[in-house]
Amino acid sequence: MKIFGDSISGNCLKVLWTAKLLGLPHEWIETGVLTGETRTPAFLAMNPAGQVPLVLLDDGRPLAQSNAIILHLSRGSDLIPRDAYLEARMLEWMFWEQYSHEPYVAVARFQVRYLGKSPDSLGPDLFRRAEAALDRLDSALDGVDWLVGDRFTLADMALAPYTRFAPEAGLALEAWPRIREWIDRFETFLGLPRLGDDR
Amino acid sequence: MKIFGDSISGNCLKVLWTAKLLGLPHEWIETGVLTGETRTPAFLAMNPAGQVPLVLLDDGRPLAQSNAIILHLSRGSDLIPRDAYLEARMLEWMFWEQYSHEPYVAVARFQVRYLGKSPDSLGPDLFRRAEAALDRLDSALDGVDWLVGDRFTLADMALAPYTRFAPEAGLALEAWPRIREWIDRFETFLGLPRLGDDR
Ligand SMILES: N[C@@H](CCC(=O)N[C@@H](CS)C(=O)NCC(=O)O)C(=O)O
Ligand SMILES: N[C@@H](CCC(=O)N[C@@H](CS)C(=O)NCC(=O)O)C(=O)O
Repeated sequence: MKIFGDSISGNCLKVLWTAKLLGLPHEWIETGVLTGETRTPAFLAMNPAGQVPLVLLDDGRPLAQSNAIILHLSRGSDLIPRDAYLEARMLEWMFWEQYSHEPYVAVARFQVRYLGKSPDSLGPDLFRRAEAALDRLDSALDGVDWLVGDRFTLADMALAPYTRFAPEAGLALEAWPRIREWIDRFETFLGLPRLGDDR
Repeated sequence: MKIFGDSISGNCLKVLWTAKLLGLPHEWIETGVLTGETRTPAFLAMNPAGQVPLVLLDDGRPLAQSNAIILHLSRGSDLIPRDAYLEARMLEWMFWEQYSHEPYVAVARFQVRYLGKSPDSLGPDLFRRAEAALDRLDSALDGVDWLVGDRFTLADMALAPYTRFAPEAGLALEAWPRIREWIDRFETFLGLPRLGDDR
């Protein structure tokens, strides 16, 4: 499988880390969002949405949308609960991530860290919503190690990558101690370096 | 199953129509988003995200996120392709809907039709993105009746309800003839009245 992704993107890292965790052979093709590489005719022919991550499966067929990709790669693995209700709760988190978390937490971080904007210039709404998403995540982690069924699932894989980058938007995780511990667990589980709260 | 939903919401109608199509016994509990019924303590105890649709399954367990709900209800039915790749393409559309379609097409329609704002007051960005979503959908419908595997799937169920309401935001579907035909097919398939382009 080929993974077209940008290493600064949490959406892309989800796919890379899922492939690694499952031991799936893969080739990472760095594709810069800041340099227009997702908007070339060749790329648009593979993904008309003009976005990474995109994978080309071994038979050459394309697949986009980070969460659809990690669900496909993980079929039948223990990253997806066998219980139908727990699987549905995992999907609930994954749709919530794309609808209520990524558009605020990831966008705030991209604007601040990569476009060099000051948090103030982005207006209070973006940060209010990012904080509301982190509040909800923190509550959900009360007394549990992982979001669904007390095992690592794709709900954690979908939500941890951008949450881990939140401090880069000025959203210091000290305010959300349960998230911080969960990110520590996530980094340990995946063998990632500690980013911490203070980079 | 109990479905808490607001009949003006495409996200809620997805769930209702999936339950009907599958012949699942259900009780619809009208829950107004314009009247604050999603923000009462009783509702927040069921869904901390404070949003409809929400279902309570027959054993009382809650489930939120329209697309997670319709996936759960449809498990094992022919609304989900058996082929793993086609299932993944269906999921790709469903995540795309929540990320790149609903936040523009549904939000524009809500602001115009339910909050009484003029399209001009909403700024060009929202409409540019709504139109980009409709462009992409129209291209994808070139030469096919349904989005995935040439059968009705949850990709159509996720995308048609708000697309059908696009004219209420001033997005007349004449500009996207393949979408118009697909909406006709959708209404026929589900036995819905024709909304047309001219309400
Ligand atoms: N919902 C998509 C979002 C993908 C996305 O927003 N990709 C960004 C990078 S994180 C991108 O490719 N942006 C470049 C562009 O839009 O031109 C997913 O989960 O994969
Ligand atoms: N991503 C969610 C979105 C749900 C949503 O936005 N619900 C709206 C109605 S369409 C709502 O309940 N709004 C009331 C509120 O936020 O207080 C889904 O697909 O179910």
